[in-house]
Amino acid sequence: MTIHDFNRGPFPARVRIALAELGLQDKVRFVEVNLRTGAHKRPEFLAKNYSGTLPVLELADGAFIAECTAITEYLDHLGDRPRLTGTTARERGVIHMMNKRAEIEFLDPISVYFHHATPGLGPDVELYQNAEWGERMRDKALRGARYFDEVLSQRPNVAGETFSMADITVVAAFIFADIVKLTIPSHLGHLHAWHDRMSARPSVQGWRDMGRSDRNMPLET
Amino acid sequence: MTIHDFNRGPFPARVRIALAELGLQDKVRFVEVNLRTGAHKRPEFLAKNYSGTLPVLELADGAFIAECTAITEYLDHLGDRPRLTGTTARERGVIHMMNKRAEIEFLDPISVYFHHATPGLGPDVELYQNAEWGERMRDKALRGARYFDEVLSQRPNVAGETFSMADITVVAAFIFADIVKLTIPSHLGHLHAWHDRMSARPSVQGWRDMGRSDRNMPLET
Ligand SMILES: N[C@@H](CCC(=O)N[C@@H](CS)C(=O)NCC(=O)O)C(=O)O
Ligand SMILES: N[C@@H](CCC(=O)N[C@@H](CS)C(=O)NCC(=O)O)C(=O)O
Repeated sequence: MTIHDFNRGPFPARVRIALAELGLQDKVRFVEVNLRTGAHKRPEFLAKNYSGTLPVLELADGAFIAECTAITEYLDHLGDRPRLTGTTARERGVIHMMNKRAEIEFLDPISVYFHHATPGLGPDVELYQNAEWGERMRDKALRGARYFDEVLSQRPNVAGETFSMADITVVAAFIFADIVKLTIPSHLGHLHAWHDRMSARPSVQGWRDMGRSDRNMPLET
Repeated sequence: MTIHDFNRGPFPARVRIALAELGLQDKVRFVEVNLRTGAHKRPEFLAKNYSGTLPVLELADGAFIAECTAITEYLDHLGDRPRLTGTTARERGVIHMMNKRAEIEFLDPISVYFHHATPGLGPDVELYQNAEWGERMRDKALRGARYFDEVLSQRPNVAGETFSMADITVVAAFIFADIVKLTIPSHLGHLHAWHDRMSARPSVQGWRDMGRSDRNMPLET
């Protein structure tokens, strides 16, 4: 499998962490797409993913799977039983709900803030910005952080007792918050305690090193 | 099971269609939440769904599952095998990708257009509007329609050979387009031919009648 990748990106981090959790890191190679030059908005890449975002998983037969949630679903069903997306109907429903909520209330608003109310990927890529919208999304993300703090005051992981895809998505929100220098208020103690626990997981500790071009593709450059 | 509902809403339509496809329509009751008075933004409802949107599925034990995709995952795993979300890893990946793409490129932008560049649910509910953003989202949705026309020139259903959750999400985009009087250009022949086929399915024909309060809850009002 090939991952069309943006090495330090928060969304690609979701897939890296999922790969490590599932023990699949040796099954993939990473190919870097240069977001800073807008390579992801050119026809060649849009043919792989209409939405023009990374990561995109390319299967051996040439099929493309975009969207972190979809890629995680795919990877999680390669083994005998799902480990990140739940096994019962109820687990699957709750994990998908909390994952989507982590996207729309926390991770995605930080992304919109980055692209619309900061220089984002630079003037050659950010051809349209709506700063007012971007700032509202920053505030939405901060409300989202308070919500997840409340959730994590009641249970050990975002979707319940067990680590899941939804935890990975909130970890990605922390990664993006760090990039855009958005401070998650320190008084959100449950959220920070959870994040400390997450940061101790090997999958989360190691994501920045996975797929570094100097390691994983030495013979292909 | 109880569905906290907005009778004619495009998102609740997704769940109605899924219920009918799965033969589960007799297992649910519907409770109407009045969006026009902003009931979905008051604390009592936000405790059920932090995002303040409908539909929300309430299980017999009192748990809540929000988000159409998550509700569909739940319902689809109540039987022996999934019928709307795929069975193999590859099917699941592709269906989730196309479902998410139908949301972010077609259905959700129409929703943002409605809430930001039209009167939406009215001045008591739409406390902040960003018309410029809303209009951009309308244009994004129209580009999305062209993309799905192209997809449907190559295969019979949105995610491939088989009807899936992704088809339902594009059907919901048509329902929302109709409400906001956004015309899907008639030259998108593949998309319209697909939509004609979808409209002939009993699940799509019947969604407006499912859960009508005068039918399903006669003893409870
Ligand atoms: N919904 C997508 C979002 C992915 C995404 O936004 N990725 C970032 C990289 S971290 C990107 O491609 N940004 C480029 C852009 O939006 O111009 C997913 O879940 O995969
Ligand atoms: N992401 C949600 C969106 C649901 C949604 O937007 N539902 C509409 C009703 S059709 C709603 O509640 N709108 C109220 C609002 O946004 O104020 C889902 O997939 O369930």
